[in-house]
Amino acid sequence: MIDFIASGTVTSPKGFKAGATYCGVKAGVEGSLDLGILFSEVPCMAAALFTTNKVKATPVVFCQQRLKSGRAVAVVANSGCANAFTGEQGLADAAEMAGLAARAMGISPEDVLVASTGVTGELLPMKLIRAGIERIVLSGKGGHDFARAIMTTDTVSKEVAVRVGEFTIGGVAKGSGMIHPQLGTMLCFLTTDAAVDLDFLKVALQKAVDISFNMVSIDGDTSPSDTVLILANGLAGNEIVSQDIKPGDVFQEALDQVCIYLAKSIARDGEGASKFIEVTVSGAISPAEARLVARTVVSSPLVKAAVHGGDPNWGRIVSAAGRSGAEVVESKIDLYIGDLCLVKAGELQPFDRRSVVEIMAGGEVYIGLNLNLGTAKATAWGCDLSEEYVTINSQYTT
Amino acid sequence: MIDFIASGTVTSPKGFKAGATYCGVKAGVEGSLDLGILFSEVPCMAAALFTTNKVKATPVVFCQQRLKSGRAVAVVANSGCANAFTGEQGLADAAEMAGLAARAMGISPEDVLVASTGVTGELLPMKLIRAGIERIVLSGKGGHDFARAIMTTDTVSKEVAVRVGEFTIGGVAKGSGMIHPQLGTMLCFLTTDAAVDLDFLKVALQKAVDISFNMVSIDGDTSPSDTVLILANGLAGNEIVSQDIKPGDVFQEALDQVCIYLAKSIARDGEGASKFIEVTVSGAISPAEARLVARTVVSSPLVKAAVHGGDPNWGRIVSAAGRSGAEVVESKIDLYIGDLCLVKAGELQPFDRRSVVEIMAGGEVYIGLNLNLGTAKATAWGCDLSEEYVTINSQYTT
Repeated sequence: MIDFIASGTVTSPKGFKAGATYCGVKAGVEGSLDLGILFSEVPCMAAALFTTNKVKATPVVFCQQRLKSGRAVAVVANSGCANAFTGEQGLADAAEMAGLAARAMGISPEDVLVASTGVTGELLPMKLIRAGIERIVLSGKGGHDFARAIMTTDTVSKEVAVRVGEFTIGGVAKGSGMIHPQLGTMLCFLTTDAAVDLDFLKVALQKAVDISFNMVSIDGDTSPSDTVLILANGLAGNEIVSQDIKPGDVFQEALDQVCIYLAKSIARDGEGASKFIEVTVSGAISPAEARLVARTVVSSPLVKAAVHGGDPNWGRIVSAAGRSGAEVVESKIDLYIGDLCLVKAGELQPFDRRSVVEIMAGGEVYIGLNLNLGTAKATAWGCDLSEEYVTINSQYTT
Repeated sequence: MIDFIASGTVTSPKGFKAGATYCGVKAGVEGSLDLGILFSEVPCMAAALFTTNKVKATPVVFCQQRLKSGRAVAVVANSGCANAFTGEQGLADAAEMAGLAARAMGISPEDVLVASTGVTGELLPMKLIRAGIERIVLSGKGGHDFARAIMTTDTVSKEVAVRVGEFTIGGVAKGSGMIHPQLGTMLCFLTTDAAVDLDFLKVALQKAVDISFNMVSIDGDTSPSDTVLILANGLAGNEIVSQDIKPGDVFQEALDQVCIYLAKSIARDGEGASKFIEVTVSGAISPAEARLVARTVVSSPLVKAAVHGGDPNWGRIVSAAGRSGAEVVESKIDLYIGDLCLVKAGELQPFDRRSVVEIMAGGEVYIGLNLNLGTAKATAWGCDLSEEYVTINSQYTT
């Protein structure tokens, strides 16, 4: 029912265009892209979720203000500088950036949102931004370049689009470091040509984020820039999707899939990651507790390091579950690595250590934990902890 | 007033003896010690704090039961095997270990406590333990050997003793990995010859632990084995210390100092640590919030990695404070690294980058954060995140 579109991206839904350029904010990375615009031919319903960090980057403050209208037409985004902890000048720069993009597209400045990611505590090099914005050419295939323009330590761009019934939903994201719930992403832009009720859109976005970006952990840090934005332009011409009509479920399911795809892409491309980890917790007494346990296990540095070393150190998994704060009873736990049962009702099972080592040697490690206390279930994603993560983050001023 | 005793240890207070041996639990580490006994010539008032992990190692369950009497005479402890997730057999082994030690010392089995640290999910090699206990010789200088016998990935033993007025307090600890509040330690044994009221002792221990072991973070993981135990044998012959009489303050202050010394030793010797980090937060609206911010900053993988690389990435420190959950207002923050002010009232100050790099190149990095919102203050300790941490924990089944 939900079709993933080949090479789908944020410009796959009708009426969206994008473009990007290299303007020099990411110093010394000539050839890459660091400034992009995402644009809709008609005004969009817009909803967003932002970082829960008490310290918010300037673009977040700027967008929170602007999104009170629930309307937007375009986003201008850069990588290399987060425009965070930059005070009044930073806010003026964000406004100028939006104004320049508006002029280039011939739209109202109030309809332009801004996002920035990269080093904190430094002002945007506005001279470079000004020259860059003028050079950006928008096209219906520009989503791929836009996705590349928001990358920092990401090694691949994260893009997806799905078609379901009459409408299409696309998305791009950047992740890599400082990834942890709440808002397990740095930047994510979602587009859809569906006609959607704004209140429904806000609720749908929160639901999708709760089971996707909020279930990813790379390093336990939450960035001041975290942003998930959705633009819905209605060009599919469908009956307006709302809570009350059936396409609401269909839209939700499609949005969930897009967000989960991007969240998993972020986990796969975590800084220094060599392995993808999926933790599914079942039998919890509530969905909140299932999520808590799954996130705690996938975030545990000791579990992550064990996975990195291909070490079937199952005690660390049980320990992490135990310290999560959720109800956990040792004598009820079942633990699986891949499809191998290591622990049944709290008792270590006879297992072939080499089989487990073999499973853990793969690029994807699946951990299953049944608490056998209730019926709630949740899945979280992350990556191993490698020496490379430390090297990246000890030498790189982000 | 409080004198640190040269080469002070757990046998420095009157009437305490200890001894240790190598019995082979730590396979392949011949020459080191892995089994020890700590003993008091007369019965002690005993109080302890244990892991908050819902999954508890067998010795923790065993001691919680036994400590209901508030009395103990000895502890037998081993490293190399944590006797965790070992079910009924594990509990029987702990009881046998206590019984063997009791027989060797000619005391009642009910007066012996047990502690184990090391690999989880494996049964204690009781044959080795049985032979080992028989070989242990107790002496008034045995505290040093006892401290070595509880080490796992620790590179140095952690020991201290202070004299204050009529009495002495000593302590040993082991740490290294899986260190995070609540209970930022693996094992800590404290001894004193002070005569102390049991209720007072329990409260004093909690207070001391709150500002010491609960303020240390190595990796955010909380072990199922965490134990802080204090034995008070009264041989100093002082008037019984309680809440109501003046020596209560003196005892508390001395106990605080002993615990802080050991907590800092644990931080200094964190797995793979090359640098010690001290974070002091002032101006918080409550002591709980001050502690929360200090612990969040010292635990942040990105801050830890930046310190490792000597990178003055101050934005990561402010970000970590912002996500701590405590009240933080960006425009009020002052930030110091060493005695250099980097941020004043949220504004980046002109500073000499080389001076900061120089400060961070040292083995000890002091971070000061004034939230300027209230009067509460707290200090937390940790270490940098190094490639070596990952190597240790990806190759070592703990």
